[in-house]
Amino acid sequence: MASERSYGRAPAQLRPVTIEPDFVRSATGSALISAGETRVICTASVEESVPRWMVGRGTGWLTAEYAMLPASTGRRKARDVTQGKVDGRSVEIQRLIGRSLRGVVDFAGLGERTVYIDCDVLQADGGTRCAAITGGFVALRRALDRLVAEGALERLPLTGSVAAVSAGVVGGVPLLDLDYPEDAAAEVDANVVMTGDGGLVEVQATAERMPLSRAHLDELLALAEQGIEQLRAAQQEAVEA
Amino acid sequence: MASERSYGRAPAQLRPVTIEPDFVRSATGSALISAGETRVICTASVEESVPRWMVGRGTGWLTAEYAMLPASTGRRKARDVTQGKVDGRSVEIQRLIGRSLRGVVDFAGLGERTVYIDCDVLQADGGTRCAAITGGFVALRRALDRLVAEGALERLPLTGSVAAVSAGVVGGVPLLDLDYPEDAAAEVDANVVMTGDGGLVEVQATAERMPLSRAHLDELLALAEQGIEQLRAAQQEAVEA
Amino acid sequence: MASERSYGRAPAQLRPVTIEPDFVRSATGSALISAGETRVICTASVEESVPRWMVGRGTGWLTAEYAMLPASTGRRKARDVTQGKVDGRSVEIQRLIGRSLRGVVDFAGLGERTVYIDCDVLQADGGTRCAAITGGFVALRRALDRLVAEGALERLPLTGSVAAVSAGVVGGVPLLDLDYPEDAAAEVDANVVMTGDGGLVEVQATAERMPLSRAHLDELLALAEQGIEQLRAAQQEAVEA
Amino acid sequence: MASERSYGRAPAQLRPVTIEPDFVRSATGSALISAGETRVICTASVEESVPRWMVGRGTGWLTAEYAMLPASTGRRKARDVTQGKVDGRSVEIQRLIGRSLRGVVDFAGLGERTVYIDCDVLQADGGTRCAAITGGFVALRRALDRLVAEGALERLPLTGSVAAVSAGVVGGVPLLDLDYPEDAAAEVDANVVMTGDGGLVEVQATAERMPLSRAHLDELLALAEQGIEQLRAAQQEAVEA
Amino acid sequence: MASERSYGRAPAQLRPVTIEPDFVRSATGSALISAGETRVICTASVEESVPRWMVGRGTGWLTAEYAMLPASTGRRKARDVTQGKVDGRSVEIQRLIGRSLRGVVDFAGLGERTVYIDCDVLQADGGTRCAAITGGFVALRRALDRLVAEGALERLPLTGSVAAVSAGVVGGVPLLDLDYPEDAAAEVDANVVMTGDGGLVEVQATAERMPLSRAHLDELLALAEQGIEQLRAAQQEAVEA
Amino acid sequence: MASERSYGRAPAQLRPVTIEPDFVRSATGSALISAGETRVICTASVEESVPRWMVGRGTGWLTAEYAMLPASTGRRKARDVTQGKVDGRSVEIQRLIGRSLRGVVDFAGLGERTVYIDCDVLQADGGTRCAAITGGFVALRRALDRLVAEGALERLPLTGSVAAVSAGVVGGVPLLDLDYPEDAAAEVDANVVMTGDGGLVEVQATAERMPLSRAHLDELLALAEQGIEQLRAAQQEAVEA
Repeated sequence: MASERSYGRAPAQLRPVTIEPDFVRSATGSALISAGETRVICTASVEESVPRWMVGRGTGWLTAEYAMLPASTGRRKARDVTQGKVDGRSVEIQRLIGRSLRGVVDFAGLGERTVYIDCDVLQADGGTRCAAITGGFVALRRALDRLVAEGALERLPLTGSVAAVSAGVVGGVPLLDLDYPEDAAAEVDANVVMTGDGGLVEVQATAERMPLSRAHLDELLALAEQGIEQLRAAQQEAVEA
Repeated sequence: MASERSYGRAPAQLRPVTIEPDFVRSATGSALISAGETRVICTASVEESVPRWMVGRGTGWLTAEYAMLPASTGRRKARDVTQGKVDGRSVEIQRLIGRSLRGVVDFAGLGERTVYIDCDVLQADGGTRCAAITGGFVALRRALDRLVAEGALERLPLTGSVAAVSAGVVGGVPLLDLDYPEDAAAEVDANVVMTGDGGLVEVQATAERMPLSRAHLDELLALAEQGIEQLRAAQQEAVEA
Repeated sequence: MASERSYGRAPAQLRPVTIEPDFVRSATGSALISAGETRVICTASVEESVPRWMVGRGTGWLTAEYAMLPASTGRRKARDVTQGKVDGRSVEIQRLIGRSLRGVVDFAGLGERTVYIDCDVLQADGGTRCAAITGGFVALRRALDRLVAEGALERLPLTGSVAAVSAGVVGGVPLLDLDYPEDAAAEVDANVVMTGDGGLVEVQATAERMPLSRAHLDELLALAEQGIEQLRAAQQEAVEA
Repeated sequence: MASERSYGRAPAQLRPVTIEPDFVRSATGSALISAGETRVICTASVEESVPRWMVGRGTGWLTAEYAMLPASTGRRKARDVTQGKVDGRSVEIQRLIGRSLRGVVDFAGLGERTVYIDCDVLQADGGTRCAAITGGFVALRRALDRLVAEGALERLPLTGSVAAVSAGVVGGVPLLDLDYPEDAAAEVDANVVMTGDGGLVEVQATAERMPLSRAHLDELLALAEQGIEQLRAAQQEAVEA
Repeated sequence: MASERSYGRAPAQLRPVTIEPDFVRSATGSALISAGETRVICTASVEESVPRWMVGRGTGWLTAEYAMLPASTGRRKARDVTQGKVDGRSVEIQRLIGRSLRGVVDFAGLGERTVYIDCDVLQADGGTRCAAITGGFVALRRALDRLVAEGALERLPLTGSVAAVSAGVVGGVPLLDLDYPEDAAAEVDANVVMTGDGGLVEVQATAERMPLSRAHLDELLALAEQGIEQLRAAQQEAVEA
Repeated sequence: MASERSYGRAPAQLRPVTIEPDFVRSATGSALISAGETRVICTASVEESVPRWMVGRGTGWLTAEYAMLPASTGRRKARDVTQGKVDGRSVEIQRLIGRSLRGVVDFAGLGERTVYIDCDVLQADGGTRCAAITGGFVALRRALDRLVAEGALERLPLTGSVAAVSAGVVGGVPLLDLDYPEDAAAEVDANVVMTGDGGLVEVQATAERMPLSRAHLDELLALAEQGIEQLRAAQQEAVEA
């Protein structure tokens, strides 16, 4: 299967990645990230308040929401509001995005502010949660840069950068950055979130069809590490735009 | 006030309009419409079924949904699902979009299919409902063109095109295509939906601050007619892309 | 069709209208309006507070709700709470009622109070939204009269009266005040809201089956103007009861 | 307190009762019942189907819904749909109404039909649940009479009539048919549902302030029996209208 | 039928009852009550606040919730949250539990605190609402005993104890404490709540298949009185544990 | 900190574990699992049908739900139905439970049946999701054993057993099976799901306070492997009860 990967990719190769900063001009910070045919709109909105239980501590908060536009996937997906609740998969994903981005924020430095990261999937072709984290960081960084530029913050309240990538075992072969057909066929599916300097923030590995061996887990982590390095470069470029 | 319109516009002038067709590649048809700083993603998804009460009649249906992305407006707008219901203004707007587009569909020609038009506002600077109708028509047309190209339909089940524009009275002066600051200051606000050959599909005029005279209503309808003509040209260009 | 109108009406004739003030004795103000077989219970409740975002401005607010009793229509209509949300059509209608009545309220004169107008349809035979506005004004007026009588207000915080009527084109003939069978057959359907002294507050015209010409729109507005005059007389009588 | 009852009533006396049949002409059967200042609109709607779990048994079903119009009570009561759920008290009441009316229906005789009884409180001054049962029976009877008249049923599928009344102990004195001020002051509050020939269908007695003695319970049941007899006469008159 | 009662019971005999106090160690007070195969987990949680409308009065409140675990009954029962609302029967039951327990609380003595009684049915074999009240009282008492022991309260804010039992007429025979098969076959079903010193708190009797005579009602009340006495003993034992 | 672990545990030691099978007699299969002060009721209910989209494939499905009883935690936790939605953390957990148990079911062998695993937390002291998986497996196994015993299944449709345990880094020290205070203080928190023969089913590691090193991840996985072995023994004992 590896010989027929989209874009003629090698097993350890990412799909073409582009990050267009400031895609949504009404947002404090934003980015449109594309990873192959997967495209996610990420925005960061900053409110000058915190949830009630945090008031008075002098520290801030970050929360994330994730949704798929109805036409982002082959068969139209009904909006959450029509179902009366956020789809279970989306709940799981937005909690992951929130934890991942909070991992690099200095909340004392942010002060009593809340950052909302909204990730709306324009096209879904596998890896949307990882794209949301990677693009969400750029939106966050752009928003905080603006607060610094406007004098609302003295310095950037970030301890580093964060990005995410998927890896999986398909037909016995470990592959980096699965697209949707690969994901659907994978025996094992892992999502790995890392800081820019290589620390693990979150590892989620799921054996879909057969238990995962420690050896495969190690290979997936190594692939992910390579992918993250390239994503960090794409982030850097977008951030400096 | 007319002397300081955005883009240095004359009272009867539209904001710059662009319509990018096929912006969402996973949709059957789509368009990204920009009218000044207002930007709306429009998609058309076709399902091979109709609501239960229509089964067996041999005719199709079209329904529309409208939502604002949280960061599309100055202060972050909570998602409908968080509030537990579609925002009242959005309900009113999506019903208008649906009626407007149904006005030009030949449902017998469509057969037992449902077309979903989804309009998601990326940036809101006034006139989003009109942009959604104008862009929604392009998404619809692109989707139906594809069904024809694929042989699912013999001919295009459309009786014409449809577009919409706002007009209003601001400081006593009738103006075409209000942006948000103008809309907020308007004494009268009208939304006019017309077919490509100049027939009225829907007129909604609301006196916000003082009753509307028949003379002003006539002026607004005349302005709208001019605007629609230009929008039809932009649609035509997008459709032929 | 015009020759067989209900009540043997001419095209420009209203159905018999009666407005019974103070129908709900537990409400601050109320009216039961009948327009032919359409009957709507309208009440006005006044609370001594305003929505949070208005506190401290010294001005009041008015909001409207509209619902159909389950047996008001041929086939029983499930209650909104059973569906988990207000019916889309009702949302659109209650927003129209609210805008129309707010158009004649002097909110500075009202002070920091909220008026709730509740319109519950007892029987639906076409024109319920117009009956709700016309009867809702009487309920509002009765409630404000009471506040004046009780000394809570120095003078009536109204700038005039407001009423609404429908008109449409059926079989090519413009008709005033459509009943349900006429409405279902109409090519064009318009709802017109006017102040007592003849100013337009809201115009909503929808082409259901074929685009609407400017000539027809003008005829419908003229018909509506005649109807409103008679409704104003019925309101006046009820208000002075 | 008994010496100052509304309408100068003796302890064992009902408030003035009137039942206006066919108040809602769009319903299959209906009644407006007034018991003093308490007024409830009752309708019966018949659908030619049964809940899924009953299909094929040849028997019918009856279900009841109860709601208060927002202005029926002193301080405006928000609609259930606004709260997102039926108010707990209303749930309890509509279950009681349904059980009470089902107690006199011959469901085999009804066939596979569902009767919906809707009870909407226009004015609430104590005893609304009892008024809803008493008036609901009239609406039910009028609807079934119509089905018989139309030939849909051969004979009336009822085993008798049913009515309900409240009784309570206020200031140590047993009283029939409490109005709201009496109800609010009652030590014990009972609702008694009886068939026309004097059988108990449901007894609910609640000690609000002090435990209830068997002697008082007996007195309340005796009072109720007297009240039911008068209600039955009012029902009879309405049914024969 | 009486000759074949579960556990070889006589008509006036309870099922074996056990009450295990402090079953949930994270709760302030708790009990697991078993009445034959019916088992209910009861907990009491105390919060140092009251509903907004009670603030500043110096008195407390008690509220109850009732739910069935999905596997507590033969066919799995979907959770309330999946249905989007509390099941109607549960609403009715939790209101009964709340009223019953509030009947013995001295709210001035409790101070501005709210007690939550949660009753979760582990196994349902008839009589769950009565078991919930009887076990709920033990949970409540254990919680208040703890507040006294910790010095938060000077004395126990209770005016007595409370327990509940069902009785019914099955095949013409009055029986105490119906299990599920008896309940499903009963002509009449009554739930009786009494204080420890024999006062009636609530009586609910429902004729399921034929009207109830006064004679039968008296017999059921007498049976209940006997049952309550035994339940009080079981409560006493658990409370002193 | 390791020197003061609850139960005087060494870093690689589990809390005392007991699994009581058949705790809920109305369920097809059930278990009450205790891990120190954490206690979870697990039930398995089997329905003879599958979700609509699976009908006709001859294979079954398993789905899991997770909820906390209100008094299971220090401060009373409102029920999901009161909030109108399943708590986000619970959604994430029940998806994990479902995936983990599905990993060992032979769905072709199960046939067109759905197994519902319900995990209700009685007491929460850390590690509830792992206890739910470990106890859920016992409930599942008991239910399937019963289906085999009753002849509904020819053989057990399981490919093995599954259990889960947490591990984390607290104060720089890797620890097995965190209780709540340890969990709240952990720098890294991992949940590991393994089959009885040592294959990884799911790994979720989250760096709460500082990025996780590969070395630490390896240590946590090794600790988990030891824990799982002991849990498997406890499961085995319960299953053979």
